[in-house]
Amino acid sequence: MIMDEKEVLEALKKYREMDLKYEDGRILGSMCTKPHPISRKISEMFFETNLGDPGLFKGTKKIEDEVIHMMGNFLNNDNPFGYIISGGTEANITAMRIIKNLSIKKERLPKVIVPETAHFSFEKAREMMDLEYIKPPLTNCYTMDVKYIKDYIEDNNKNDNKKIDGIVAIAGCTELGTIDNIKEISKIAEENKIYLHVDAAFGGFVIPFLEEKYKMDNYNYEFDFSLNAVSSITIDPHKMGLAPIPAGGIIFRDSSFKKYLDVEAPYLTDTHQATLIGTRTGIGVASAWGVMKLLGKEGYKNIVSKCMDNTHYLVKKAKEYGFEPVINPVLNIVALKDDNPSETCLKLRQIGWYVSICKCVGALRIILMPHVKKEHIDEFIGALASVKKN
Amino acid sequence: MIMDEKEVLEALKKYREMDLKYEDGRILGSMCTKPHPISRKISEMFFETNLGDPGLFKGTKKIEDEVIHMMGNFLNNDNPFGYIISGGTEANITAMRIIKNLSIKKERLPKVIVPETAHFSFEKAREMMDLEYIKPPLTNCYTMDVKYIKDYIEDNNKNDNKKIDGIVAIAGCTELGTIDNIKEISKIAEENKIYLHVDAAFGGFVIPFLEEKYKMDNYNYEFDFSLNAVSSITIDPHKMGLAPIPAGGIIFRDSSFKKYLDVEAPYLTDTHQATLIGTRTGIGVASAWGVMKLLGKEGYKNIVSKCMDNTHYLVKKAKEYGFEPVINPVLNIVALKDDNPSETCLKLRQIGWYVSICKCVGALRIILMPHVKKEHIDEFIGALASVKKN
Repeated sequence: MIMDEKEVLEALKKYREMDLKYEDGRILGSMCTKPHPISRKISEMFFETNLGDPGLFKGTKKIEDEVIHMMGNFLNNDNPFGYIISGGTEANITAMRIIKNLSIKKERLPKVIVPETAHFSFEKAREMMDLEYIKPPLTNCYTMDVKYIKDYIEDNNKNDNKKIDGIVAIAGCTELGTIDNIKEISKIAEENKIYLHVDAAFGGFVIPFLEEKYKMDNYNYEFDFSLNAVSSITIDPHKMGLAPIPAGGIIFRDSSFKKYLDVEAPYLTDTHQATLIGTRTGIGVASAWGVMKLLGKEGYKNIVSKCMDNTHYLVKKAKEYGFEPVINPVLNIVALKDDNPSETCLKLRQIGWYVSICKCVGALRIILMPHVKKEHIDEFIGALASVKKN
Repeated sequence: MIMDEKEVLEALKKYREMDLKYEDGRILGSMCTKPHPISRKISEMFFETNLGDPGLFKGTKKIEDEVIHMMGNFLNNDNPFGYIISGGTEANITAMRIIKNLSIKKERLPKVIVPETAHFSFEKAREMMDLEYIKPPLTNCYTMDVKYIKDYIEDNNKNDNKKIDGIVAIAGCTELGTIDNIKEISKIAEENKIYLHVDAAFGGFVIPFLEEKYKMDNYNYEFDFSLNAVSSITIDPHKMGLAPIPAGGIIFRDSSFKKYLDVEAPYLTDTHQATLIGTRTGIGVASAWGVMKLLGKEGYKNIVSKCMDNTHYLVKKAKEYGFEPVINPVLNIVALKDDNPSETCLKLRQIGWYVSICKCVGALRIILMPHVKKEHIDEFIGALASVKKN
């Protein structure tokens, strides 16, 4: 049945009202948040752009190059190469494409060291590319055991059939916000000439702006290109960067990695395409540029400090009610121990609170994104207490 | 350097002015176009949505389900399953994931019959998933040779090591707009129980709305779920569907295929995720819904008829100037024979005209999208004539 414009907009408004809104503070398990207000105006301006065919949208392409340089800059890389893409999943799959293509032994599966706590995008990559994952045991900090990695590589790297083709480390893991000891892992990777990819999809817009007072002694917060072996980093402006979706990011140390991704693109203004996805809007690219120029490092520092302050506030309140965090928060993610997290999560949902759960440990998972305020935390802890009492 | 809001918007405006605009009629080689005006209003409304976590955005998720049913409806499928995703590349990779996962022999590469004229997204899929492509010769209609396919399958399908795991056919190929003889291919696939995927990224919003008078005798325009073996179709609302990017589509015959795509998603409101990309905006989904409700089948029919009318107008004008089409246009795509298409393409670009080229035959490629008007065609043919004279 055909509708007129008014009917269409009214019908869609009704659907939209069924969605949760970030500003209501009930979304506590998402790594996305309300984009910065300026991004609405920017998105309107770049609504029709398509970076899948950059020769047609040369201005938007220039913005992308600048965004990559700006992000490279706060990742300690003066000569970065990369793309603003659909999100962390595409970025991580892209890094795995490189590792697969760099792997010399075609007769066996590419072998990659991947943390137990890795995001499920790595599972998609494994399934598609037939990668073999080696998952080191976790330390009591929920990070990869560095000694295990060192020993494993020493034991296997002389034998081409058993050699490790790549390592993935995480800076701000999805479940607990922990950061692998990337400084030490980088040393091992460098010594053994192994490709090292860092998934900082979440942490990339947090760690560079984190005040010293929030840093935990038992974690090493170094994760970027200042570490010699780091070849690529996933870092998403549409998470803590306050850009709208789609704005994921993949940054390489330099453009020498492009050749491992290029596919011939005969119909386009460019002859080759390195991104996994073809057609892609410039909305996220231009918004990321705008938000970064507007906020600057100081602006992000303020946002991160507020989120960290709320994180510690949540932990304090939770403890008052007898709930214990799994670890002291490393970033703005809190995991609260729970004997039946799936059930608690479901019960909370029934009364309108949306947290998520950890897989590696029995816990509820709460992300203190910029849309979460202290009053939401107060209400939430009350709701959690009532759910656990019944 | 930090900027204020005004400075940011002014700087971005300057970049945006370096882009081409669809309404200027100079973009003649793109399968994207100016989205329908209503999609700006809709995108504003759904700006913050994330279908990567559908439990948080239940209204937007309902819209997606409805869009899939609406699209299924004009593809002759009352019980469709699918997603609105980033574009044709993700859709085609998704279909290849299914074929890979359905392939029973894990000791050898999955074998897929793929047209010579297939979009380069299939090359990305091949590279990632180590697929083996069998490319049948092309007929003089630039479609796959059906007899070759039949013979190849008969010769090999008894032997598990040589068995074909999937067939890809195209309805509206990127280069020439041709349509494979999917009716006959479907019969072969059905007899031999082979998965058949149809790439109708472009043709999906053209062929169902094409008036009989535009159909060529030497092509079979049947391509959808009315053919028994068709299991999945790529169909992009952000091409001829007039939705904004990102709005690609993958539609399956039914939900039984979901299990071959599902990956465990412990942190989300859903326990599993079937799409390749995780986080995804609802902008394209809601816009596709809105544009489809507003235009209806009649509206799309009018748009397609105008584009086809312009297509034949271009061919007529081209012939007047001595340029010959490779084939009579099957859809709104024209390929003009050229002895050095790369050079001509470059020369045209230097004077502001953006066509692209064919790979399978020496020709310039022009797509008559809705933003291309008759006056643009007149100007373009004049420009082409002047370029070829010099």
